[in-house]
Amino acid sequence: MQALDSLRAEIQTINAQILALLNRRATLVCDVQARKTQDGLPTYLPEREQAMLDALLAQNQGPFSNETIAALFKEIFRASVALMEQTKQAQSKLPRAPSGQTRRITIRGAQIGADPILIAGPCSIESTEQMQKIGVALQTKGLRFVRGGAFKPRTSPYAFQGLGEEGLRILRDTAQRFDLISVTEVTDTRRVGLVAEYADILQIGARNMYNYDLLREVGRTRKPVLLKRAFSATLDEALASAEYILCEGNEEVILCERGIRTFEKNTRNTLDISAIPLWRQACDLPVIVDVSHAAGRKDILLPLARAALAVGAHGVMVETHPSPQTARSDGQQQLTLPEFQTFFEQLFPPKA
Amino acid sequence: MQALDSLRAEIQTINAQILALLNRRATLVCDVQARKTQDGLPTYLPEREQAMLDALLAQNQGPFSNETIAALFKEIFRASVALMEQTKQAQSKLPRAPSGQTRRITIRGAQIGADPILIAGPCSIESTEQMQKIGVALQTKGLRFVRGGAFKPRTSPYAFQGLGEEGLRILRDTAQRFDLISVTEVTDTRRVGLVAEYADILQIGARNMYNYDLLREVGRTRKPVLLKRAFSATLDEALASAEYILCEGNEEVILCERGIRTFEKNTRNTLDISAIPLWRQACDLPVIVDVSHAAGRKDILLPLARAALAVGAHGVMVETHPSPQTARSDGQQQLTLPEFQTFFEQLFPPKA
Amino acid sequence: MQALDSLRAEIQTINAQILALLNRRATLVCDVQARKTQDGLPTYLPEREQAMLDALLAQNQGPFSNETIAALFKEIFRASVALMEQTKQAQSKLPRAPSGQTRRITIRGAQIGADPILIAGPCSIESTEQMQKIGVALQTKGLRFVRGGAFKPRTSPYAFQGLGEEGLRILRDTAQRFDLISVTEVTDTRRVGLVAEYADILQIGARNMYNYDLLREVGRTRKPVLLKRAFSATLDEALASAEYILCEGNEEVILCERGIRTFEKNTRNTLDISAIPLWRQACDLPVIVDVSHAAGRKDILLPLARAALAVGAHGVMVETHPSPQTARSDGQQQLTLPEFQTFFEQLFPPKA
Amino acid sequence: MQALDSLRAEIQTINAQILALLNRRATLVCDVQARKTQDGLPTYLPEREQAMLDALLAQNQGPFSNETIAALFKEIFRASVALMEQTKQAQSKLPRAPSGQTRRITIRGAQIGADPILIAGPCSIESTEQMQKIGVALQTKGLRFVRGGAFKPRTSPYAFQGLGEEGLRILRDTAQRFDLISVTEVTDTRRVGLVAEYADILQIGARNMYNYDLLREVGRTRKPVLLKRAFSATLDEALASAEYILCEGNEEVILCERGIRTFEKNTRNTLDISAIPLWRQACDLPVIVDVSHAAGRKDILLPLARAALAVGAHGVMVETHPSPQTARSDGQQQLTLPEFQTFFEQLFPPKA
Repeated sequence: MQALDSLRAEIQTINAQILALLNRRATLVCDVQARKTQDGLPTYLPEREQAMLDALLAQNQGPFSNETIAALFKEIFRASVALMEQTKQAQSKLPRAPSGQTRRITIRGAQIGADPILIAGPCSIESTEQMQKIGVALQTKGLRFVRGGAFKPRTSPYAFQGLGEEGLRILRDTAQRFDLISVTEVTDTRRVGLVAEYADILQIGARNMYNYDLLREVGRTRKPVLLKRAFSATLDEALASAEYILCEGNEEVILCERGIRTFEKNTRNTLDISAIPLWRQACDLPVIVDVSHAAGRKDILLPLARAALAVGAHGVMVETHPSPQTARSDGQQQLTLPEFQTFFEQLFPPKA
Repeated sequence: MQALDSLRAEIQTINAQILALLNRRATLVCDVQARKTQDGLPTYLPEREQAMLDALLAQNQGPFSNETIAALFKEIFRASVALMEQTKQAQSKLPRAPSGQTRRITIRGAQIGADPILIAGPCSIESTEQMQKIGVALQTKGLRFVRGGAFKPRTSPYAFQGLGEEGLRILRDTAQRFDLISVTEVTDTRRVGLVAEYADILQIGARNMYNYDLLREVGRTRKPVLLKRAFSATLDEALASAEYILCEGNEEVILCERGIRTFEKNTRNTLDISAIPLWRQACDLPVIVDVSHAAGRKDILLPLARAALAVGAHGVMVETHPSPQTARSDGQQQLTLPEFQTFFEQLFPPKA
Repeated sequence: MQALDSLRAEIQTINAQILALLNRRATLVCDVQARKTQDGLPTYLPEREQAMLDALLAQNQGPFSNETIAALFKEIFRASVALMEQTKQAQSKLPRAPSGQTRRITIRGAQIGADPILIAGPCSIESTEQMQKIGVALQTKGLRFVRGGAFKPRTSPYAFQGLGEEGLRILRDTAQRFDLISVTEVTDTRRVGLVAEYADILQIGARNMYNYDLLREVGRTRKPVLLKRAFSATLDEALASAEYILCEGNEEVILCERGIRTFEKNTRNTLDISAIPLWRQACDLPVIVDVSHAAGRKDILLPLARAALAVGAHGVMVETHPSPQTARSDGQQQLTLPEFQTFFEQLFPPKA
Repeated sequence: MQALDSLRAEIQTINAQILALLNRRATLVCDVQARKTQDGLPTYLPEREQAMLDALLAQNQGPFSNETIAALFKEIFRASVALMEQTKQAQSKLPRAPSGQTRRITIRGAQIGADPILIAGPCSIESTEQMQKIGVALQTKGLRFVRGGAFKPRTSPYAFQGLGEEGLRILRDTAQRFDLISVTEVTDTRRVGLVAEYADILQIGARNMYNYDLLREVGRTRKPVLLKRAFSATLDEALASAEYILCEGNEEVILCERGIRTFEKNTRNTLDISAIPLWRQACDLPVIVDVSHAAGRKDILLPLARAALAVGAHGVMVETHPSPQTARSDGQQQLTLPEFQTFFEQLFPPKA
């Protein structure tokens, strides 16, 4: 057996040789791709990979087992495919954020992605009077964003499903009267045009985050889209859903964390606070937090909103209703207007 | 203090008085409802409940705290509302199964809900040749159900999204040639009509279980619907989604368990085997299990399928592909045709 | 049928009668309990409840079904049992926090439960040199709390299990030399005495939160206990575990949230930020957050720590190591000392 | 640019060169290890890996990025470490099951790991009379395994904690009288000796699966151990816990799946049926299923038990109690003796 130093020196040399071969191989793979693209051939063929692998395993004399060799070469193949896809990646619509700068979305003077915003309003739009009270409450505080559902996806087909177009009309009128930016959900590809006529921001609800046809359709509008993470979605899946919208040419997507489903039952969902820094790291889209749906209860909305801003969210969404106990949906998690007043003042205390 | 026996006797008497009052109250509530329905008034008003509760709490002298009294009366109110809704429940389209008899769905001589069935085919329809090989494999074994995706909901917008209508055409031709019943997914309300022209059974994928507009739309067709549980859905939510379809008049719904999302990573999802007896208890719809998506790997499909049949499922769905290693989606979980042959023979061994 | 008003008036009357009967019943139940306690009889007998229920169901003439009546009376029984247990509750060691005041724990001039604290140190104690570097880093910043494991519970029996008593000795020496308060984990009932000799605060790790024998044993010491929530524990279960310690007379318990296990894989665990306000609402124990174990990665520790303080935590725990890449456990989540310096300065910026 | 064929040929050649270098490198690494072991040096030094990597990255000229090169070499390093550890692996106590043969455990003529067994009994041992009724019920059916808890880990410190040694005595007497094999839980390292004196099989409960000190202690006895998977444990973690027992020389471990914690609330836990084939594939230990704790309800125990046997479990554990409604723990999930009789007959129907 060689001495330790000699063994180590030889390992070092082999490392360098492998390095050179890996890079040479990568260059060749890119050349193959270029040629194929030129000739209009498919660039990735798993069966060719399999053939290459089979050839290698036939030559393998150990000590690495065939399983190990197969695993290592699969990594090498994967790296090569990734390299080939970098050109596509360069075209990817999901704006990676090396600069740490957030893409700003501006609507009638209001900005998303800069100073923290507050989006507030009822779960469902129920009447003009209801929305007017909301409008007054928001305008008084200098707030600019109002939310409210006209098409409500409800678990039971027998539950209140929203006022539909009538609700959209009320929302638009409220927004105009109080100079607000409106956010409302769209649930059906066939209604994207209709909702886009009335609303300023199209919301994709948590239940529709995987509804790729709908994502494409809102991607074809020129309205900003507020995309809620499904309560079962990984962070990566949410980014992939954003990419569906961006792909169609709509660059104004706002990501929204609203809690994920876990075993804990004191809260309706578990607010995944780590989502905010991780999404901000992954891309430059603005990120907000819907504290009402995360908590499903009113008594911890303020601390959760504070945590959201502290962790780097660009805003908070919260449900408020002039009369939550008679609300047609989500009664117990909506703040009364006085409670909302307190929430607002404590979240954004006036600076001395 | 009274003696123990005397105390107990008085408790007994009070129990009986409460019982009588509860039932009298229930009768009155139903009368109120009947009158309201007659007069076209809304039957459930949360604010009236709140007023009644406030009145009661004002009178409460303990020893029960206001919280306890409120909690008990909310139960009583809830029971009354439930009673009022029994009439609607009687009209509920979700067929509760007191008899234990499963609703059978018959398509061209093949039955779902009786003897266990096997639905097999590739993840994606890729070519006529591919589907023909599948067709031969199924027909040889006397199998009647073929699956295959033409519109594929994929996490990445850059992944293969299915052949679209061309895929539907291949599926229909395969079904005709080999006398098979075809199952394929529909993902967009605007395409329900198109898919219904080509396929025998419309599949709602796991990602669309909460897409209520789509559920309503397939509910308006007269094609059986295979409804997959979302990987984050509770059993009750899946039943509520079935009800959306039934509501529209389509009575032929097949429930499909395909695994839920948990922390365990050896399987792509965790097959919730308890779903089958619990759904069968809750309603009389047929229930099947998609073992491929539950496991996300091939090596345990046979034991999982055996468990599914042992627990009472009416069938099993499994992915098979003539050449999984070159498949355009879900390569590693699809059985080769020889593997499928073995799977079939071991799941349904020939009787001596 | 009566008119609506008349029906409503009668319902109102019945409500009041039920109220009176419920309270009378509650008084009688408490009398029964008092008598039984006097006579040394068991106070809660489920079989008597069943007998009462059977009697009631035999008398039930509807319209409420037997199921509904059983459900309502079970609520009533449960409320009565709860009332009986209020006396015991009054003796509960879990300090409910009506005042919102947190119980403070003071150790050699350092306070937990007042201004936010920072507990830092390596995953495992590895050598005197290592701990000395940590000690210098902490002392320079005026920090008082040091953590480090001597008995490490590791998933694999072949992984490094800690230096044992030698580690405890190094920890104690470091604490003395740099005037620090030490926190270290105890995993075995037989070693509680030993660890208590060396350490200032006994840590119960996430894996041992359900180890009730161990909880009781640390409850018998007079050392403060830092109790980590198991990664699968509900908030209520964590409080119940705290109660095991308090029950034995040890009033100094610190609750620690460190992430729960979910399907999301970008973080090792999902930090359940809602735990902090909910625990603070439920009791007056101090609450801290271990950001290192929640994240399992270094790049989001700062935002998570900010969120923890914003949401109301009394402190943050973080892992740091002079040389993470050679650490014997948890290498990739431990901050280097320069990284820790930055983390500290950004979390607690010097006030102008 | 070269022609496609020529490019491919060169890739092929490079593949072969990389293969040869990888294997040569592996041989050298093993030589290094051998020399180090001889000289008593630590065999794995992460900092040396880092140095090698730094050297490589300094030489990297692309097109692979430094990140990719680092990732690929980390795989190569990992494979080398894995190869070095194969010797240790050969000594691993976790019996990998290449043959598919299950290790059988024999106790007084009863076998675990062969024909399916049924382990039954109450949650808690409460009295001699109770256990005698159980004993009669088991003996009549020819069943050999009885379960019952004497030391009960309960969420609340105020709940019934078991009869302790008195319970053990009752269990032993019942076992002797009815020729049964007894299974009971041990929760404290200090009581392993005591419990081992009375019981035939030591149970590690789900709450203690991560209690490594306890695992080691039962590993030092010569009693078979029934190891329950924690409700939050991955399959791999459960195997690692088994290894703790095997490491100490105790080869008789029975793995037990009893449900994991998920969002679904119709069942207390979600039975992870895939655990059984995956564990059986990973090792040759017998595997059983505790259907009572998985379901937490009685009405689906029979289908779950059938699924367990169909999927390949070596047995089923179920709770039964002469009078569940008065049981001191887990009342609603325990079968009455007549229900148990039916369960048994339907699970094991007499062969014609």
